Amino acid sequence: MKMGELEELALRARAAAVGLSTLKTEVKNGALLAMGDALQSAAGSILDENAKDLETGREQGLSTALMDRLALSERRVCEMADGLRDVATLRDPVGEMVDGWRLPNGLLIEKVRVPLGVIGIIYEARPNVTVDASGLCIKSGNAVVLRGSSNAINSNTALARVLAGAGSKNGLPENSIQLVESTDRETARELMRMHGLIDVLIPRGGEGLIRTVVENSTVPVIETGVGNCHIYVDDSADIQMAVDIIVNAKTQRPGVCNAAETMLVNESIAAGFLPAAWAALKEKGVTLRGDERTRELIGEAEVATEEDWYTEYLDLVLAVRVVPNVGSAIEHINKYGSGHSEAIITSDYSRSRRFIEEVDSAAVYVNASTRFTDGGQFGMGAEIGISTQKLHARGPMSLSELTTTKFVIQGTGQVR
Amino acid sequence: MKMGELEELALRARAAAVGLSTLKTEVKNGALLAMGDALQSAAGSILDENAKDLETGREQGLSTALMDRLALSERRVCEMADGLRDVATLRDPVGEMVDGWRLPNGLLIEKVRVPLGVIGIIYEARPNVTVDASGLCIKSGNAVVLRGSSNAINSNTALARVLAGAGSKNGLPENSIQLVESTDRETARELMRMHGLIDVLIPRGGEGLIRTVVENSTVPVIETGVGNCHIYVDDSADIQMAVDIIVNAKTQRPGVCNAAETMLVNESIAAGFLPAAWAALKEKGVTLRGDERTRELIGEAEVATEEDWYTEYLDLVLAVRVVPNVGSAIEHINKYGSGHSEAIITSDYSRSRRFIEEVDSAAVYVNASTRFTDGGQFGMGAEIGISTQKLHARGPMSLSELTTTKFVIQGTGQVR
Repeated sequence: MKMGELEELALRARAAAVGLSTLKTEVKNGALLAMGDALQSAAGSILDENAKDLETGREQGLSTALMDRLALSERRVCEMADGLRDVATLRDPVGEMVDGWRLPNGLLIEKVRVPLGVIGIIYEARPNVTVDASGLCIKSGNAVVLRGSSNAINSNTALARVLAGAGSKNGLPENSIQLVESTDRETARELMRMHGLIDVLIPRGGEGLIRTVVENSTVPVIETGVGNCHIYVDDSADIQMAVDIIVNAKTQRPGVCNAAETMLVNESIAAGFLPAAWAALKEKGVTLRGDERTRELIGEAEVATEEDWYTEYLDLVLAVRVVPNVGSAIEHINKYGSGHSEAIITSDYSRSRRFIEEVDSAAVYVNASTRFTDGGQFGMGAEIGISTQKLHARGPMSLSELTTTKFVIQGTGQVR
Repeated sequence: MKMGELEELALRARAAAVGLSTLKTEVKNGALLAMGDALQSAAGSILDENAKDLETGREQGLSTALMDRLALSERRVCEMADGLRDVATLRDPVGEMVDGWRLPNGLLIEKVRVPLGVIGIIYEARPNVTVDASGLCIKSGNAVVLRGSSNAINSNTALARVLAGAGSKNGLPENSIQLVESTDRETARELMRMHGLIDVLIPRGGEGLIRTVVENSTVPVIETGVGNCHIYVDDSADIQMAVDIIVNAKTQRPGVCNAAETMLVNESIAAGFLPAAWAALKEKGVTLRGDERTRELIGEAEVATEEDWYTEYLDLVLAVRVVPNVGSAIEHINKYGSGHSEAIITSDYSRSRRFIEEVDSAAVYVNASTRFTDGGQFGMGAEIGISTQKLHARGPMSLSELTTTKFVIQGTGQVR
């Protein structure tokens, strides 16, 4: 990319953001519906472009998992289009009065929700992010700058062209949706240094990508996604419930961030519980990495090293540790966890309260699977990602999290 | 500072944060009151240490303004102590249930306010920040790591020792309040790279400091303070009200971030309004930097350059520009402003609405002085700073802005 080109793109996005910030909800919704229809109409050419990416991916020997994330189909295009239609039905967060009061001197203060401005999304292979992120940014009144990976460049270019075209034909300001066509590292770094032009950067992808963005960005970042999630099985747990929850949290979809990675088991029930859990997990193809006590009880468990406690396997592997009490479970979680989602299985009231209060994570569960940490499951509508940082947003992020607030102060000539 | 020392300090802060996060409100309040009393009892030795800083400052030829910020007195110590007592009276933000709902599957979801964890404050000369920031961090359940400037090292060390001592004698975990005694640049940079150990960094000081923190920090930053504030005088304005507001916003305390720096005047009233405003401003010692039209009307106005529109004078200097309409005023503000506080003086309803909606700043006023942008004035209690960024907090920040939220999900065995 030539020097200054990215800056020009960002300036165009800023200009679009001004118009977007005051756009009526019905115009935004109309554009979202049109974008959905346009995607379906253009499915053929989108799949042609996707085929090019898939071919390059095969030549480059991408893993099956990556190829699966990259692949589009008629059905996936329909699902993306439906996603845009769903976003159109969600409540517009812009204009919500978050708070308001009158001062003794008569000044009226309102705290009102407004768009962030320009949102940058840096993401890996999945082309559906191009569509999902665009829909949420537009609905929340923001311009979006998309920077996908080289693996998906043909798919992303086709998708962004369709979305931007349908959007600007249906009331969105020009340049509301822009894809950065250069996928080299320098361009990504330039994007990360655009403090003042881009209001927030949201990286979506693996730990390496997120780390690079955090290390290099002067633009405020929302970290998403890394989930080293834990299930602690208390000695007061309902054993069947604990087995059902660990099997669900580990195996229902092992490749996602809210899947469980480590199980902690109270020592006084380990001998009874672990064989029962192992029977159910084994049937689903799970392998275990256990501490010494676990390996005494489950001969097939491999040795868990210190490294395992930190690991997000995203696979049918579960680390298991036997702990003396809820306090040591909490300590383990706060030390090794990534602050995503953790659950206690217990029938003891005070231990449930202690776990809730002392575990320092975005989502803390009592007697439920960690797999519910998701904007859709939480009933928040679509989701732009799951924040594992504490600033601005924590946990599943939807439309409100793509806004900021503004103080509006109305007076009659007040001075200090 | 030796390698690893700062990391140890941060780890001690993290340990303290665990205890602080679940501390009862009455314990925190008791500690705050004790810290206030301890400050007053130790006033003599605090002033002795402050005298050393003042002497070094004189030797180094610090400006009068800096020396004034640095200087403590019996009265200032009392004010700081009273500040702590005021914070004790504020409502504890921790535990507030921000939102809550039940899912169709019976899961109960609560979004609960919890402390951020460890807050780092990097600040310039003012020793009162040591006290104010400590009080707000403790009340909101956070451990604080203070890094002041070398100019105030003796004062800050004395203040932090008194606060930490009184705090830990009155129920706060050890190391809840820590001052980084090394004031070299390397230590500051090390602090900025403590992603995962420090949860947020708040720089308080001039533009240079804030820029350095934004450029170098991997820890999430809340930008504060730079205020290039505008007053737009519409042709429908009540002239006397406009004069009163511009005089107040420019001169009541010119060295602060919510003081006005540029006045924009509608061209159709410029000939009548500018001489009236100038008469009042001149009396207060203000000098003007004007565009061509302003200089035609006010011979004493100096020439305003492009640079002037960007400048936060923090002094009795006002830039003045004549503009054709409210749209061009908004354009000027969004181009040159710092997103802090802007006001329109008008009697026209639709222009007031347009100004409110289109100006992209933390605080937007109709018919009032920008000087009200302040946590105390807004009735939020004490203030840790004024955020000029959009992420997490925007405008005056008080206790709530020093917290994050956690999702608590209670179930009866739900799985996906």
